[in-house]
Amino acid sequence: MHAQEVTYKEAGFGNALPLGKSPAILVVDFSYGFTDTTYPTAADMSEQILRTRTLTDIARAKTIPVIYTTIAYQPWERDHLTWLKKASGMKDLLVGTRLTEIDARTGIEPTDPIVVKHGASAFFGTNLMSLLTSAAVDTVVVCGATTSGCVRATAVDAVQCGLSVLVPSDCVGDRAVAPHEASLYDINQKYANVVDCDSVLSWLEQL
Amino acid sequence: MHAQEVTYKEAGFGNALPLGKSPAILVVDFSYGFTDTTYPTAADMSEQILRTRTLTDIARAKTIPVIYTTIAYQPWERDHLTWLKKASGMKDLLVGTRLTEIDARTGIEPTDPIVVKHGASAFFGTNLMSLLTSAAVDTVVVCGATTSGCVRATAVDAVQCGLSVLVPSDCVGDRAVAPHEASLYDINQKYANVVDCDSVLSWLEQL
Amino acid sequence: MHAQEVTYKEAGFGNALPLGKSPAILVVDFSYGFTDTTYPTAADMSEQILRTRTLTDIARAKTIPVIYTTIAYQPWERDHLTWLKKASGMKDLLVGTRLTEIDARTGIEPTDPIVVKHGASAFFGTNLMSLLTSAAVDTVVVCGATTSGCVRATAVDAVQCGLSVLVPSDCVGDRAVAPHEASLYDINQKYANVVDCDSVLSWLEQL
Amino acid sequence: MHAQEVTYKEAGFGNALPLGKSPAILVVDFSYGFTDTTYPTAADMSEQILRTRTLTDIARAKTIPVIYTTIAYQPWERDHLTWLKKASGMKDLLVGTRLTEIDARTGIEPTDPIVVKHGASAFFGTNLMSLLTSAAVDTVVVCGATTSGCVRATAVDAVQCGLSVLVPSDCVGDRAVAPHEASLYDINQKYANVVDCDSVLSWLEQL
Repeated sequence: MHAQEVTYKEAGFGNALPLGKSPAILVVDFSYGFTDTTYPTAADMSEQILRTRTLTDIARAKTIPVIYTTIAYQPWERDHLTWLKKASGMKDLLVGTRLTEIDARTGIEPTDPIVVKHGASAFFGTNLMSLLTSAAVDTVVVCGATTSGCVRATAVDAVQCGLSVLVPSDCVGDRAVAPHEASLYDINQKYANVVDCDSVLSWLEQL
Repeated sequence: MHAQEVTYKEAGFGNALPLGKSPAILVVDFSYGFTDTTYPTAADMSEQILRTRTLTDIARAKTIPVIYTTIAYQPWERDHLTWLKKASGMKDLLVGTRLTEIDARTGIEPTDPIVVKHGASAFFGTNLMSLLTSAAVDTVVVCGATTSGCVRATAVDAVQCGLSVLVPSDCVGDRAVAPHEASLYDINQKYANVVDCDSVLSWLEQL
Repeated sequence: MHAQEVTYKEAGFGNALPLGKSPAILVVDFSYGFTDTTYPTAADMSEQILRTRTLTDIARAKTIPVIYTTIAYQPWERDHLTWLKKASGMKDLLVGTRLTEIDARTGIEPTDPIVVKHGASAFFGTNLMSLLTSAAVDTVVVCGATTSGCVRATAVDAVQCGLSVLVPSDCVGDRAVAPHEASLYDINQKYANVVDCDSVLSWLEQL
Repeated sequence: MHAQEVTYKEAGFGNALPLGKSPAILVVDFSYGFTDTTYPTAADMSEQILRTRTLTDIARAKTIPVIYTTIAYQPWERDHLTWLKKASGMKDLLVGTRLTEIDARTGIEPTDPIVVKHGASAFFGTNLMSLLTSAAVDTVVVCGATTSGCVRATAVDAVQCGLSVLVPSDCVGDRAVAPHEASLYDINQKYANVVDCDSVLSWLEQL
C-alpha cells in the first residue's frame, strides 16, 4: 500500500456509505455548453452520456426521480456574480441559448425537472434539497460534468446535506485527465462511493 | 503551454478575482485534531501555522476580523450524520476534547470567534456568512487544513456566496502532496486566487 | 403604554436597526397572480405598487439595485413540493403563465433582475443573497405582497443573513387587514424597521 | 363564514398537509431565558412545557428523535450580529449562562441533541436539516417558544425544506395573546397543520 493510502486509512477515510432505499438520479450539467465540443467550455462526454442514459432509463421504469441541472444566467447575474469573474467562460451560459439546453442524447423528456444552478454545486442557491426532501429521497447518484468542478461540489454538498451519495466514475467526465482522476480519488475518500455504472444498474434493478 | 492549460484558458478559467476593501482572515481547522501528529487525523502544519499567524497578527492590528473554525461534534451528531459514515476518523472530534481546540501556536485569543463546522465547508450549516455580512466583509483569505478537504470546500462556498477569495498556498496544508497540489490547481482555476503569504501581507498592509 | 408594549420593551425588542450605505430595493411578488384581482390568489395592490414605484424610480436614478421576485413553478415542482399541499392556490403560478409576470405598473424594465422563488422567503432556495453580496449590499428595502406571507418571511431571512432591513408599511399589502397589521407589528418588533415610503425616499435621496 | 375565511379559502390556503411516517419532535427554545419569568425575555410556559413533555416521553419510548434548540451566543456574535441590534434582549443569551440551558421541566436527558440557533429559525445557519435528513425524518412536530417568533420562523423553514409540519397549539406559547393567535392563524393557513397535543399523541401512538 502506498504511504498516502496508509495515511488516509489511518485517518478513517474511504469507508463505504450505506445505501438508502429511495434514490434519485442527478444529472449535472449535461447541457450543450459542457457537451458540444464546438463550444470552448465543453468536452467530449459522449460515452458518459450514453452510460448515464442506461441509469435514467431504468430509473424512469421504476418511477425513481431523474433530475437534470443546467447553468443558465440572467443577463444581470452575468454582470454581477463574483464567481463569473473567476470563471468568465461561464458567462456564455445565458438563459435561452442553446448552451443551456440539456443534450438530447441524455434522453431528457419535456416533463423532467431541470434545476437551474448559479455556481458549481447543484445545491447552492437552488431548491434541489427541498425537492429531494419532498420526494423522501435518501440517496443520490451523481452523474455529469465536470468531475473536478460541478460534480465534486455537488457530491460534497449532498453528503453534507445528510444524503448517501454514489458517483459512477464512468458516468462523469472532465476537460482533462489529471483533475478528473484527482477528484475521483478525493470524492471516494471523503464524500461518496465511487463505483461504476454497472454496479449502480444492478442496485437499481433489485430495488 | 500544456494542452490542459490551453483547454482551461479557452474555457475562460483562471482569471484573477478583483479584491475588495473589507477582508476577513478565515483560519480553517487548525485544531489539534488536524495539527498534532500524535492523532491519526492530523498532519504536520507547523510552517503553515507560523505563516498564517503573520496574517492574523497584522489583521488584528488593523481590526480586520479573524475567524477560526473547528469541527466539534455532539455525541448525537456523531452517531447519525451521514458524512461521518464516510469519514469515520472525524468521529473522534468530540465537543470538549483536545482534538477540537484551536492549536495555541496560531496565537488565538480568548475572545476570537470560533465557528463550529459539521462538514467540510465552513459555510455549510453554520452562521459564518451571517457574521461576514454583519461585518460587511467582501473578501476572505482562507488559510488552514486540509487543502483538498475543508479549505477547498470552503473556497467553493465562499465564491458561490459572492465573496472574493484568496488562498495563500503556503498557509494551507494537507496529509499528502498530490491532493494538495491537485486542489490548489483547481482552486486557482475555478474558485479563488491562489497566492502566497507575502503578497497577502503586502495587500493587508496597504489597506 | 399597553401591557404588551411594556412586555416587548422590557424583553429588548423594537430597537431601530442602523441603516447601511449600500441599499437594494426588493420588490416581492408584485406579479399578476398577486396583484390582478381576477385571480383568486390576488388582492388589490394598486396603491402599494404606485408607491413602490417612487422608490424604484429614484433607486434606478442612483444606480441602486432593484430586484423583483416572482413565484413560478415548473410542472414537476408543482406536483411534488410539500408547501404546495398546504397552499394549493400557489399551484396556479406555473412558469410561462401571466400569473408569474411582474405587474407592468411596477415599471419593471426588461433587464431588471427577477429572482424565482419557490416558497415564502425570497432567500430560501434562491441565489438572492449571493447577488446581494456580489453587489456589496448591506441594507434591503422590502416592498410587495403579501405582508403576512412572503414579505414577512423575506424580512426574517434578510436580518438573519446579517442585512439591515426596512419595510415601508404603505408599500406592502395583504389579502386581509388583520394579518397585515399583526405582521407589521411583529416585523417592527423583531426583524426590520417598519417605516413609510416617504422616509425611505428621503433616505435614498441623500445617499 | 367571515370574509377573510372566504378570501383565504378561495386563494387555496388552509389545506391539511399529509403526514409522513417518520417524525421528529422539535422543541424550540424552552431554555430558561424564555421560560423563567425572572428574566425579562421570558414568559410563563409551564403548561406548554408539561404538554410537550407528554409528546417527548412517547417519542423516546418509540425511538422517535427529540431535538431541542437554544439560542446561545459567543461574545463576538453578540457584538456583531445585525439581528441583535433589533432584538437587543437576546444579547443576554450568552454561551455558558443559565438563560441558554434547556428548562429541566422538559425532561431533557444528557444525550439529547441541542441545536444552537443564532436567529429566529431553527434551520437558519444550523445543521438541523442535515440531522433530519441523516435520520430520514419526513415530518416535524414543532413545540416551544415563542409562537410569533421562533416557532413561526421554524415552521416556515420546515415546510420550505419539504417537510410536513405539525404545530400543536397548546404546546407553543408567547409573551402576549394577540401575536400568539395571529401567528397560529397564519401558520395554519400557510405553513403547517395547527392541531392539539392530544391529536399528536394519538398519531404518535399508532405509528
